[in-house]
Amino acid sequence: MEGHVNFTLSDRLRKSPFYEATIRAGAKTFTIYNHMIMPTSYEGEEADYWNLMNNVTLWDVAAERQVEIIGSDAYRFVEYITSRDLSKLQIGQGKYALITDENGGIINDPIILRLGDNHFWLSIADSDVLLWTRGLACGLGWDVQISEPDVSPLAIQGPNNLPLMLDLFGDWVKDIKYFFFRECELEGIPLIVQRSGWSKQGGFELYLRDGSQGQKLWDTVMEAGKKYDIKPGS
Amino acid sequence: MEGHVNFTLSDRLRKSPFYEATIRAGAKTFTIYNHMIMPTSYEGEEADYWNLMNNVTLWDVAAERQVEIIGSDAYRFVEYITSRDLSKLQIGQGKYALITDENGGIINDPIILRLGDNHFWLSIADSDVLLWTRGLACGLGWDVQISEPDVSPLAIQGPNNLPLMLDLFGDWVKDIKYFFFRECELEGIPLIVQRSGWSKQGGFELYLRDGSQGQKLWDTVMEAGKKYDIKPGS
Repeated sequence: MEGHVNFTLSDRLRKSPFYEATIRAGAKTFTIYNHMIMPTSYEGEEADYWNLMNNVTLWDVAAERQVEIIGSDAYRFVEYITSRDLSKLQIGQGKYALITDENGGIINDPIILRLGDNHFWLSIADSDVLLWTRGLACGLGWDVQISEPDVSPLAIQGPNNLPLMLDLFGDWVKDIKYFFFRECELEGIPLIVQRSGWSKQGGFELYLRDGSQGQKLWDTVMEAGKKYDIKPGS
Repeated sequence: MEGHVNFTLSDRLRKSPFYEATIRAGAKTFTIYNHMIMPTSYEGEEADYWNLMNNVTLWDVAAERQVEIIGSDAYRFVEYITSRDLSKLQIGQGKYALITDENGGIINDPIILRLGDNHFWLSIADSDVLLWTRGLACGLGWDVQISEPDVSPLAIQGPNNLPLMLDLFGDWVKDIKYFFFRECELEGIPLIVQRSGWSKQGGFELYLRDGSQGQKLWDTVMEAGKKYDIKPGS
């Protein structure tokens, strides 16, 4: 399916905490992902591509929603829903995993982040894992509480991702191993910083833990990125 | 939230079996509902309104997806997920109902259609009831099979809905009571016809049971509706 249509905004379709910033940054087209409006282009496909390949780009990926699982059965539950062995998943580490249904079909392919012994986030692709897991937990009767926290990822991608991250956060970011993460603050904004990303150019995801500070986080990164010719990406 | 954005089509966002017909009929704007592209305007809001109030309109409501529940525990399961008493729900009858979660929160507000003793459709509003119910059934371990059948509703609304329906189907349609339905065919197209609809002007929903015949169903109704000045609606 190709092409574009004129699209009616609606309160059923949620805006990202970075939405206004992406509009100001020149977002031209959008899609819907996990019921959220997500930008798909800025300067045009080819220009966006070269920005990513040559410099550094800032992506609104708030549509990667988090499903938080806590409770005394949380580890048991997360192990139950995925085909991946989680026995070596450390606190502060993420793993890419498939969530499968009762027939082995794929429900979603999130990154599973372990924040504590019995505290997990599923950083999901586009399907309602919240409803699947809540239904399953309700039927099983296990001790887990499942909800969507106020968390919105913002991705920094492209070959200059590391110099920019060092400027923003300091030397410790270069020691983060792939898919590992650390809780921190940036000018008072609560974040989780993970080495991760959507592109082969490598990068980081900043999980914003307070949606009201989306504009401030966007502006802070864009300001620091000027020296690397940072552009909005998608 | 108001206004419009330019929207990228994608295979993640499903097209209705009536999509091409709605484009040809002049659909101007769209929204996303149950991961499907649904038209929201044709001639403009005011003109669309008067078409509905004065004549008869044909609406692509394929985004009202069906969740089919069958199996020896199907009645028990459907009763379990809703707050409404279903003990008097007859085969061939629908009831508007709330699906609630374990805390009494609302998951969805479908019309529940009973096709057999242990055979139901949930004709849903905009949330993934398929994932909620499949997760719940998986956890409970009851004997139910839950899937999304190839069913796409098309709504006939407006004051001239009954004359048009009589022309299309014959006299029996006037005896269908509100929310009751009957299985039938229209020029070989398999349907369920229900008295129902989104507007106070009254109407019917034609549940198309073969997506490949969407264009034919649309054209058949539009052709028969010419004498009533039928227009596409939303």
